[in-house]
Amino acid sequence: MTNITISVDAMGGAEAPESVMEGIASILADDVWNLTFSLFGDEDRIREAAFYHNVDISRVNIHHTTEVVLDDDKPIDALRCGKNTSMRKAVDAVKSGEAHACISGGNTGALMVMAKMVLGMIHSIKRPAIIGTFPTLKGKSVMLDLGANAECTDEMLFQFALMGYCFAKGVLNKENPSIAILNIGSEDVKGRSLEQKTASLLRQSSLNFIGYIEGHDIAEGKADVVVTDGFSGNLVLKASEGAAHMFFDIMRRACKESGLLAGIGAVLLKKALKQKFDVVNPSLSNGAMFVGIDGIVVKSHGGADGLGMKNAMKVAVQLVKSKVNSQILSELKQLEEQGIYLNIVDKIKHTSAKILGIGGK
Amino acid sequence: MTNITISVDAMGGAEAPESVMEGIASILADDVWNLTFSLFGDEDRIREAAFYHNVDISRVNIHHTTEVVLDDDKPIDALRCGKNTSMRKAVDAVKSGEAHACISGGNTGALMVMAKMVLGMIHSIKRPAIIGTFPTLKGKSVMLDLGANAECTDEMLFQFALMGYCFAKGVLNKENPSIAILNIGSEDVKGRSLEQKTASLLRQSSLNFIGYIEGHDIAEGKADVVVTDGFSGNLVLKASEGAAHMFFDIMRRACKESGLLAGIGAVLLKKALKQKFDVVNPSLSNGAMFVGIDGIVVKSHGGADGLGMKNAMKVAVQLVKSKVNSQILSELKQLEEQGIYLNIVDKIKHTSAKILGIGGK
Repeated sequence: MTNITISVDAMGGAEAPESVMEGIASILADDVWNLTFSLFGDEDRIREAAFYHNVDISRVNIHHTTEVVLDDDKPIDALRCGKNTSMRKAVDAVKSGEAHACISGGNTGALMVMAKMVLGMIHSIKRPAIIGTFPTLKGKSVMLDLGANAECTDEMLFQFALMGYCFAKGVLNKENPSIAILNIGSEDVKGRSLEQKTASLLRQSSLNFIGYIEGHDIAEGKADVVVTDGFSGNLVLKASEGAAHMFFDIMRRACKESGLLAGIGAVLLKKALKQKFDVVNPSLSNGAMFVGIDGIVVKSHGGADGLGMKNAMKVAVQLVKSKVNSQILSELKQLEEQGIYLNIVDKIKHTSAKILGIGGK
Repeated sequence: MTNITISVDAMGGAEAPESVMEGIASILADDVWNLTFSLFGDEDRIREAAFYHNVDISRVNIHHTTEVVLDDDKPIDALRCGKNTSMRKAVDAVKSGEAHACISGGNTGALMVMAKMVLGMIHSIKRPAIIGTFPTLKGKSVMLDLGANAECTDEMLFQFALMGYCFAKGVLNKENPSIAILNIGSEDVKGRSLEQKTASLLRQSSLNFIGYIEGHDIAEGKADVVVTDGFSGNLVLKASEGAAHMFFDIMRRACKESGLLAGIGAVLLKKALKQKFDVVNPSLSNGAMFVGIDGIVVKSHGGADGLGMKNAMKVAVQLVKSKVNSQILSELKQLEEQGIYLNIVDKIKHTSAKILGIGGK
């Protein structure tokens, strides 16, 4: 691929469009990829921010829009009435082929339904999920759903497990990735009926299902793929970010209050720590894909700054370069050939019905 | 109160009874309170651990039991068949007046149903919840439920909010504590129907309800009382602990790998940091009360070590000394007098029925 174009909802996020233009300035300065951007939003504000951040305007195509999706808009309303919003236009640009991937820091629910409606779903997948790659003590793992679906069924979680497996194998190059369900205990009886039903489906597949893991096991890297509903996934992600912030704050205060000698200690440690802590800096892990959508749509954190936006752009570029959806599709088809059907739920219901002598014609 | 007796399920928890005896040795060495313990479990193992940890055996009353509740026992089975278990006997000791409070690090669900059945509930409260006090950037807050009820209704969450309010006011001495529901966004449309229905109930009360807060707001101390279901609360708690562990690990590695100068920095900082990090040390925040039970029952983390057990014992002592249930009861009665009924759900249903002209006799 000689040239990658990213469409951006320049009005999505608390600090947009300033954060968007700061991110673009920074990623263009790196000059690693031959990137161009299609931006959708208020042209005056975009140009002003571009000027302020010294953005090379020849690499940016600005499409003026006047409407925006608000954070408290209902997704269904945004879908029906938001055809001229900056978010919708950015998604449309992927459909039309103008862009290879799209980024928005706006309303998550609205972005999901727009992406689903405009771009469609891949191969039998029914609901998209937000998938994130995160650092663990053992390397990298993926977790989904991080917030697209507040309420889920066992069938949805089973499909999330399949997509997570394909992502970990096809994109992160993990051999036979292990899959776990996030739960509040490791014993079979623990959790809600949702976790228990999903575990039953996964046990009936021949996927590498290792059972339940708990909140504190995530950072230890006990599983390559952590499966949960969008409500739990989002809470866990944000609570971990909150803990990280608190940690930094405590360090700052300790250095400040502990006098000259410890202050010298802090300075000496700073470089070593900075490098290590980069892996848990929320800005440097910003940007998560809507997996299952037939196109690349990246959700940026609503509160992302310029560094965060830059990282979401890097994520989008890496997803384009890794041909993520072709990889996932190829893995899904292999699973299908191996008999791990996408429609395992229908299959099980069908079998049960036959055994019980009801239906199953 | 001249003398406090704590009953302990000496077999509850992965490291029990060793962790229990180590905790007792440590808390008795502090000699701050005139404590005695009633222990339930395998007498030989208890005596062996007591000997190893130099426990003053004159302060410990050992009741030999042979049965234990396993971690994968179903709560209802433990209730029916577990009358001679160490856990049940420890709860019974509170009922009989032999102990002022009980501690167990065993099966959470089993402990909850045993406590509910043996000790009963306080004043109109239908379900117990696990309440925890945690440090924030602004001081202390409480969160509930931390894992007693994996699946909750709006009425349960409303009652958790009431109990959290009473705990924060009566025990932590907060003036008109603020209450928030944990959610995946701050806008009214966010979350599941559970969060939306609970918010509607809280808005109809005159409690200081400040709306939704997200995972990262918890550590910032945005609310005095954080209300959530037991599944979400447990995940958030454990994920935060996992994040804390990861930081410690990163710090250790940074110090190790970064050479002599940074190593000196680490030593100089160590004392200052240790003091600060004590507030986020999981062992030092171990021990959470089953609020709503008519008696003091403290749940210890299943993986707690001696330091963790000691802290759970301190929590139990503090709850006894603060007369926690009298405080909560007094606050609940005041709320009732102010018209914030415990049975607000029934009241609303009743009113709606009257307006609709159905029932409401």
